[in-house]
Amino acid sequence: MTKIVIIGGVAGGASAAARARRLSEDAEIIMLERGNFVSFANCGLPYHIGGDIKERGKLLLQTPESFLARFNVDVRVMNEVISIDRPNKTVTIKNLLDGSEYIETYDFLLLSPGAGPIVPAIPGIDNPLTHSLRNIPDMDKILATLTGNKPQHATVVGGGFIGLEMMEAFHQLGIKTTLIEMADQVMTPVDREMAGFVHAEIKEKGIDLKLKVALESVEYKKENQSLLLSLDSGEQIETGILIMAIGVRPETILASQTGLKIGELGGIWTTPTLQTSDPYIYAVGDAIEEQDFVTGAQTMVPLAGPANRQGRMAADNMLGRQESYQGTQGTAICKIFDLAIASTGKNEKQLKRDGIDYEKVFVHTASHASYYPGAEIVSFKMLFDPKNGKILGAQAAGKDGVDKRIDIMAVAQRAGMTVEQLQHLELTYAPPYGSAKDVINQAAFVATNIINGDATPIHFDEIDNLGDDQLLLDVRNPDEMKTVGYIEGAVNIPVDQLRERMNELPKNKEIIIYCQVGLRGNVAYHQLVHNGFKARNLIGGYRTYITAQH
Amino acid sequence: MTKIVIIGGVAGGASAAARARRLSEDAEIIMLERGNFVSFANCGLPYHIGGDIKERGKLLLQTPESFLARFNVDVRVMNEVISIDRPNKTVTIKNLLDGSEYIETYDFLLLSPGAGPIVPAIPGIDNPLTHSLRNIPDMDKILATLTGNKPQHATVVGGGFIGLEMMEAFHQLGIKTTLIEMADQVMTPVDREMAGFVHAEIKEKGIDLKLKVALESVEYKKENQSLLLSLDSGEQIETGILIMAIGVRPETILASQTGLKIGELGGIWTTPTLQTSDPYIYAVGDAIEEQDFVTGAQTMVPLAGPANRQGRMAADNMLGRQESYQGTQGTAICKIFDLAIASTGKNEKQLKRDGIDYEKVFVHTASHASYYPGAEIVSFKMLFDPKNGKILGAQAAGKDGVDKRIDIMAVAQRAGMTVEQLQHLELTYAPPYGSAKDVINQAAFVATNIINGDATPIHFDEIDNLGDDQLLLDVRNPDEMKTVGYIEGAVNIPVDQLRERMNELPKNKEIIIYCQVGLRGNVAYHQLVHNGFKARNLIGGYRTYITAQH
Repeated sequence: MTKIVIIGGVAGGASAAARARRLSEDAEIIMLERGNFVSFANCGLPYHIGGDIKERGKLLLQTPESFLARFNVDVRVMNEVISIDRPNKTVTIKNLLDGSEYIETYDFLLLSPGAGPIVPAIPGIDNPLTHSLRNIPDMDKILATLTGNKPQHATVVGGGFIGLEMMEAFHQLGIKTTLIEMADQVMTPVDREMAGFVHAEIKEKGIDLKLKVALESVEYKKENQSLLLSLDSGEQIETGILIMAIGVRPETILASQTGLKIGELGGIWTTPTLQTSDPYIYAVGDAIEEQDFVTGAQTMVPLAGPANRQGRMAADNMLGRQESYQGTQGTAICKIFDLAIASTGKNEKQLKRDGIDYEKVFVHTASHASYYPGAEIVSFKMLFDPKNGKILGAQAAGKDGVDKRIDIMAVAQRAGMTVEQLQHLELTYAPPYGSAKDVINQAAFVATNIINGDATPIHFDEIDNLGDDQLLLDVRNPDEMKTVGYIEGAVNIPVDQLRERMNELPKNKEIIIYCQVGLRGNVAYHQLVHNGFKARNLIGGYRTYITAQH
Repeated sequence: MTKIVIIGGVAGGASAAARARRLSEDAEIIMLERGNFVSFANCGLPYHIGGDIKERGKLLLQTPESFLARFNVDVRVMNEVISIDRPNKTVTIKNLLDGSEYIETYDFLLLSPGAGPIVPAIPGIDNPLTHSLRNIPDMDKILATLTGNKPQHATVVGGGFIGLEMMEAFHQLGIKTTLIEMADQVMTPVDREMAGFVHAEIKEKGIDLKLKVALESVEYKKENQSLLLSLDSGEQIETGILIMAIGVRPETILASQTGLKIGELGGIWTTPTLQTSDPYIYAVGDAIEEQDFVTGAQTMVPLAGPANRQGRMAADNMLGRQESYQGTQGTAICKIFDLAIASTGKNEKQLKRDGIDYEKVFVHTASHASYYPGAEIVSFKMLFDPKNGKILGAQAAGKDGVDKRIDIMAVAQRAGMTVEQLQHLELTYAPPYGSAKDVINQAAFVATNIINGDATPIHFDEIDNLGDDQLLLDVRNPDEMKTVGYIEGAVNIPVDQLRERMNELPKNKEIIIYCQVGLRGNVAYHQLVHNGFKARNLIGGYRTYITAQH
């Protein structure tokens, strides 16, 4: 009879417990959770605060009682493991309700402690109006502040998933909101120019977005229940509630105290079988370092999907299976008001940092047949190896069909497909759902054209540094330039007039062509090159260029 | 200078023309279309009739003029090719406006004639109130009948894409509608039990659905502008408009007249390079036979996606590239009122017919986190090779997220993934978009359990033939059985009471377990098997069983 002790009762731990029981009816399974709740919907917390999820009870997916009845798992909440005795394979547990301590033996131990919010040592940060959001009690405290104080203004520090979701929650509650982010963009999984879509959406909704700004100090004014925030820009903000959401740090105290190997990134080191440096101790979820699917390097990706699947797999291995975790792509998505932004694989910043050779394409095309109501533009970025066409990463933003396109890319990347192969994808098409040539097919056409030498690209980040030997050509209609805007210094010849007016262009300069999204630019490119001009086409067109500036 | 003549100016032909021009500025490209319109949105026609697409002009994607200006393609509408002289590489063309005939030479000829609606030789079928729907003039005629006669009742014969879309269009216009289908299901790309979701949706919307019924004769009553339809069931229907949508037949007359090889299925035979039996003549789209991606056999799939991509590829090859068409999976989707139904790869009927060994799983799970508003059940069927786990096909029905799941499967199948590998897919997850364990992951878990021998499945189609040595066990709550229904003869022990009440079950019978969707049944299965019972779990649960009867 195998005895499994699980530390942590949320995503990874709860998945492991349920799977272990399905595999073995006679294993002894104890799940220890230092908090008061197991298996709650942590991803749903901001949506209950914002009012989308009306009932708090919906966030409580399981209780100790339901876990016992269904899975015969001995769930002990408010029970914290305070030490691990590896030679004797025991843990010492503190009952947080009465302070008593006791010992449990184990055959296998599973660490699923998660990650805690990083709260930086900012003067004055420790006050009743400053919160972070990781669990049900955190949520309850935020709700208590909101109902008790009815703040007119909220401030969120950090433009990651939780920061953005809390920003939206406050906005939805009619509270004026400031979002402060130290970097030059929110949503770090995507690149700066893709984050531009988010910046535009946030500003359009009336959020006070402050990029490249840091919080320096906080002053708590008890009398009027407010905080005076001092920013490194010199500005001061009076606010009624402050959410710190700058990131999370893996909970590794117990692991390091007991001498388990900690990785270079600061997470619990694990093997592909999800064992720690002690083969009787497994670890899963936000606290661990796992292998990056693309680079093979160690990575830390604190997301629910990997945590759940790792938990299931650790249970398999503790009960004698041989399952290997196959690396994390970091597939992620976030809803920001009406917009979705998502990514998978590596982004351009990471590829640059790691010195990996890459090429990129952008397409902006309708989420479904544009003649059918409700179509929205999907703005899509794809990163690939320019030599062998291997998919390195993908990002998308838009109001419809963003999740689908990144899922397609996540599957294709995991399967080892090349961008050339993406041309042949046969995706669902009917006017309400897609297009005969989907976003992904179109991006693959553009990428394959580049690989085959059928197109010579130029990118948005090169446009502001053109030389005297280059001429900027806008091939859109004059009306479009007026309504949408244009790049300073561009000559305008609409693509449909180019064959007749080509003689207006100089042959001794490189023609830098652009249109709105890159499609007409490609048509113009071929005309010019066939006629002996030197030319390049702006990939993603004016839309990518201008979004990078948002 | 290459001279390319294209016969047919819609999906495949228009794609080929545009691509050819991008590849070669000096090729001569002539596109001949016997109709009055090129590059129109044929998939949008039913939606304009139903009123979703308000402006007729939105269906006209290109005109001969716009094609000339953008792509320098010589587009000639109302010009029909009446013969091909292969030895001399010429075509004889009839100008349908003035009846004149003339000859064009070609270096390469592309056939993209499409497929025409099958109209069976039913007595009386040739009347002013009976229509099929393939092009703009067809649509205009239907609209004229509707506005002229204001029929109170419409009848659609054929439950394929166009039939279902026309049914919905009539319903949306407030016209009482009968749908007649000879087979025992609509939407043949999916299996009978999955079509059950469509049948339920159709009936719920008040459509008079008649399955296994054929139209025998039609009587036109000019005086009251109606038709009297006689059905083989003996029934008669009076109707104001009749749409014949029983299928399409490839347009092969020209190809066969000129001696090109016609395949066994009746389409124009093609090579993977999309050449016909004459290497100077290419063919694409609804008229051709191409390779089935799964079986490698010849197939005919009259869908827009393959047509468009084939057109592009034929242009590549006519201009010296070496592109190979990589087979058709037949990925398809249809909107039926609030429901989407979609499929890719082979269905069970085809696998049975072809003698291919397969196993199947069903899961019914939320399109996104069930605690977040708007989640709908995705009902998902996956077919796979029970030995090596290779994906054979997938089908899905539901009100949200159906297109996404079938796209994921279409990519995974094309990439050659196994169901085991689908367990590791890392898909976008945030509560508004997905779940930490997506529909696809869950289906992969179920399938892998079966392959590994961790689960012994029974299927819905075996339940009505249980023997005396089998006992049916419903592990849902008694309340559920009352509200949702149950299978006659089942014993009820809720899963959470099973450990205590196991002794109520006989050990000398095989316990056939079912719950609502199969998840709790799996938990119960493990409990019973670990305790020495012989058991099987109904895959897809009661929901699959009951839907098969709709």
